[in-house]
Amino acid sequence: MAYIDLNSDLGESYGRYSIGNDAEIIPLISSANVACGFHAGDPDVLLETIETIKASGGTGLGAHPGYPDRQGFGRRDMDMTAEEVRAMVLYQIAAVDGLGKMHGLQLNHVKPHGALYNATFDDYDLALTLAHTVYEYNPDLKLMGLSGHNLVKAGQEVGLQVVNEVFADRAYEKDGTLVSRRKEGAMITDSDLALKRVIRMVTEGKVETIDGEDIDIQADSICVHGDGAKALEFVQSIRKGLMQEGIEIKTI
Amino acid sequence: MAYIDLNSDLGESYGRYSIGNDAEIIPLISSANVACGFHAGDPDVLLETIETIKASGGTGLGAHPGYPDRQGFGRRDMDMTAEEVRAMVLYQIAAVDGLGKMHGLQLNHVKPHGALYNATFDDYDLALTLAHTVYEYNPDLKLMGLSGHNLVKAGQEVGLQVVNEVFADRAYEKDGTLVSRRKEGAMITDSDLALKRVIRMVTEGKVETIDGEDIDIQADSICVHGDGAKALEFVQSIRKGLMQEGIEIKTI
Amino acid sequence: MAYIDLNSDLGESYGRYSIGNDAEIIPLISSANVACGFHAGDPDVLLETIETIKASGGTGLGAHPGYPDRQGFGRRDMDMTAEEVRAMVLYQIAAVDGLGKMHGLQLNHVKPHGALYNATFDDYDLALTLAHTVYEYNPDLKLMGLSGHNLVKAGQEVGLQVVNEVFADRAYEKDGTLVSRRKEGAMITDSDLALKRVIRMVTEGKVETIDGEDIDIQADSICVHGDGAKALEFVQSIRKGLMQEGIEIKTI
Amino acid sequence: MAYIDLNSDLGESYGRYSIGNDAEIIPLISSANVACGFHAGDPDVLLETIETIKASGGTGLGAHPGYPDRQGFGRRDMDMTAEEVRAMVLYQIAAVDGLGKMHGLQLNHVKPHGALYNATFDDYDLALTLAHTVYEYNPDLKLMGLSGHNLVKAGQEVGLQVVNEVFADRAYEKDGTLVSRRKEGAMITDSDLALKRVIRMVTEGKVETIDGEDIDIQADSICVHGDGAKALEFVQSIRKGLMQEGIEIKTI
Repeated sequence: MAYIDLNSDLGESYGRYSIGNDAEIIPLISSANVACGFHAGDPDVLLETIETIKASGGTGLGAHPGYPDRQGFGRRDMDMTAEEVRAMVLYQIAAVDGLGKMHGLQLNHVKPHGALYNATFDDYDLALTLAHTVYEYNPDLKLMGLSGHNLVKAGQEVGLQVVNEVFADRAYEKDGTLVSRRKEGAMITDSDLALKRVIRMVTEGKVETIDGEDIDIQADSICVHGDGAKALEFVQSIRKGLMQEGIEIKTI
Repeated sequence: MAYIDLNSDLGESYGRYSIGNDAEIIPLISSANVACGFHAGDPDVLLETIETIKASGGTGLGAHPGYPDRQGFGRRDMDMTAEEVRAMVLYQIAAVDGLGKMHGLQLNHVKPHGALYNATFDDYDLALTLAHTVYEYNPDLKLMGLSGHNLVKAGQEVGLQVVNEVFADRAYEKDGTLVSRRKEGAMITDSDLALKRVIRMVTEGKVETIDGEDIDIQADSICVHGDGAKALEFVQSIRKGLMQEGIEIKTI
Repeated sequence: MAYIDLNSDLGESYGRYSIGNDAEIIPLISSANVACGFHAGDPDVLLETIETIKASGGTGLGAHPGYPDRQGFGRRDMDMTAEEVRAMVLYQIAAVDGLGKMHGLQLNHVKPHGALYNATFDDYDLALTLAHTVYEYNPDLKLMGLSGHNLVKAGQEVGLQVVNEVFADRAYEKDGTLVSRRKEGAMITDSDLALKRVIRMVTEGKVETIDGEDIDIQADSICVHGDGAKALEFVQSIRKGLMQEGIEIKTI
Repeated sequence: MAYIDLNSDLGESYGRYSIGNDAEIIPLISSANVACGFHAGDPDVLLETIETIKASGGTGLGAHPGYPDRQGFGRRDMDMTAEEVRAMVLYQIAAVDGLGKMHGLQLNHVKPHGALYNATFDDYDLALTLAHTVYEYNPDLKLMGLSGHNLVKAGQEVGLQVVNEVFADRAYEKDGTLVSRRKEGAMITDSDLALKRVIRMVTEGKVETIDGEDIDIQADSICVHGDGAKALEFVQSIRKGLMQEGIEIKTI
């Protein structure tokens, strides 16, 4: 029987500012990437998110560290040294880990957020810094990154378990990277097509690129979005579609 | 043989802004209250401070959580709900705890900072919130507070070990609270006198108030300051004076 | 013919976090209280808000300074000195004023936000600090405050024009203060009733308190809310109701 | 008679964190680049700095906007859009401008700070965004940038008066850029040599590069540093040296 993990970025509200449908999404996914209070989230939101994850009875807890840029939501690249990246990632992981443990939840994985995730595409040194940092904190943590690319390679190099992440709603280039959102066709807006692509990635290990070619892709976890009007509906349809194909959704 | 703990607030630098003589002070004290990145400190400073504590080979690691007010250095009272206090204290403790564990250091105590510490003098509910929060995070942690007052009372009520803190350089009121810095005579500036008062607190459990009366006081830990030109010198003289009296300095 | 000003708090979005219906509300009101980037708003939001006000062709520009507490949305009281309040209010006014001038808009009024507004109810010194600060920046600015209370009194004392603000959706105590939101009956949820009360305040200068007594009240400006599902509808109904009574809506 | 402007970055303290010797430096220079509260400074510091400039009776007031990265002191590059740069620079200029006007000081110039300044070396579009933004705010402002490079070129292109800035303590490459601090010989530590180089730049319009070649350089303003133990001494020696050569120090 085939397995797949469903992951989503969560805990992104801040003070009076609310984003996402965390309470509805968390029971539907198997891995929650929780914002750590730097690019999004705050202590109240983090604690509430962890309590919701606890109540879900099975969703895996992940830390989702990002750049210290709340206004930019961690989506603007910042030129930090390896030492600065190490310290801020350790701090963010520790906050999520400590609050999780307090509620009896083991931290399962780490997925860098936004610009910190994207910056690894062209910067293997950064990927290695992130991998070393996660390993240094706890070698049993899993590192989630773009399928087949620098983060997972760096994770493997340092001895971490890795999670190859794929995207249901994004087009792929020949080299397995995501088509830039600025290019036409970058987003897969037809949810039936998105579902078909995901099932094929899980069962065949293949995806058709934007140029119409098939490439190999390893799908350990599918990223689904928790905000936006149709997010919940899409997560429900992807769950249903996967289960109809006999693919079990479970935390990696 | 008598014992006493020496504690100091540390890790208060921030980015390019430097405060204190942490590298010199840490080996001289037995308990370090480490700023957690809200009122002072940042991930880089926190990590470096923990590494210095680790290298000291014995100084106890404490979390020093404060209000989220970096500009005010956590010294301005903020009207937060009990839930907000709980969440922000848990977050801050978790960050210090996680980075400490990574370096093989066990978190030993928690001492609230600045306005959060002072606000408990008149607010037993806040003291209880802080005590419950520390207990909830880890019931083996010790809670440090003004000797004989709300924080230690609340700590005892919830079942925590408590640390009665005394001040070498501050005058006392009859009720055991500190004389407000706005009043004349609030600060003990003569370091010989400060030393004598401290020795008497440790050996006799007495201190003379600003009105010339003796009151009982329990001294588990003496607060010494790590910044300012004479800080280092004063810590050295207090250590020497205590040792000459046969009082051992050790982590509580 | 009677006149009234309609004011609303705006420009409260932040980065990716969106609050309010500014583009729809601004053309319907006559005074915009624009968040200045401390408790809410940021430079991008502020600029966009000013551009929307400019495009409205007549809505008055006001600065809405608040405590430097974004997580708490400026709603948590902070114990700042008069000097700190002065500096942070000047800074916030200057930012709005400068961006307004650049677009040919004259700053018309200042209304303190949230806890900074509320703290003046019991603290005339704070009200005076705020009034002096506004006067010092520009003596032609108007100071908006709770009708008949400390802010407007302090404004008058220092020689500023003042704007007596009333609330359509809040119950009043005998002394003209607002009934605390924690008490039953604090909010007027029936919009017909709210409208009637407002019209009476404008035309008769009277309002019925929560205890059923009539008190005198001066209504120079009515505060309406820009966020929430029904906000827009309520503002439209209040405009319509006022105009039907022959009350003109215009910037004070 | 030859003229030169002396400029220095100031107002960089923050809350309890103190940097620089502003009160001593301000009377010795002719242009103050004042931090605006994003990468450094805060409303209290800004106000105090402006009051010190006012008291100096002649030092020119400049805004020194930087990236919103206080922990990194504005020295880490951030990937912001042109719109974001525009808004944050307008906001920062407005704050300084407004507080200056309140004290009867006219804003004279704008000099971007740290990474925002350095990023223009390779990015003429960013330089143009900065120049357009300053012009949009007030076309009478002067734009200060590295002598002969993108900022001054962009300033000239949009119609601003520009200030060609030179560095006394930095080595130059053949193309007139500064030798990277990571290279040996980047800093001119011999203050006699630094002074000679500066005098030659002002009187002959030439500087010897790190490779021993002479290049042309226009010196409108010399940057001197306000922090560090020897800063004050060096500013005094450079003033004396310039005056002995008959070069008058005055605001450009």
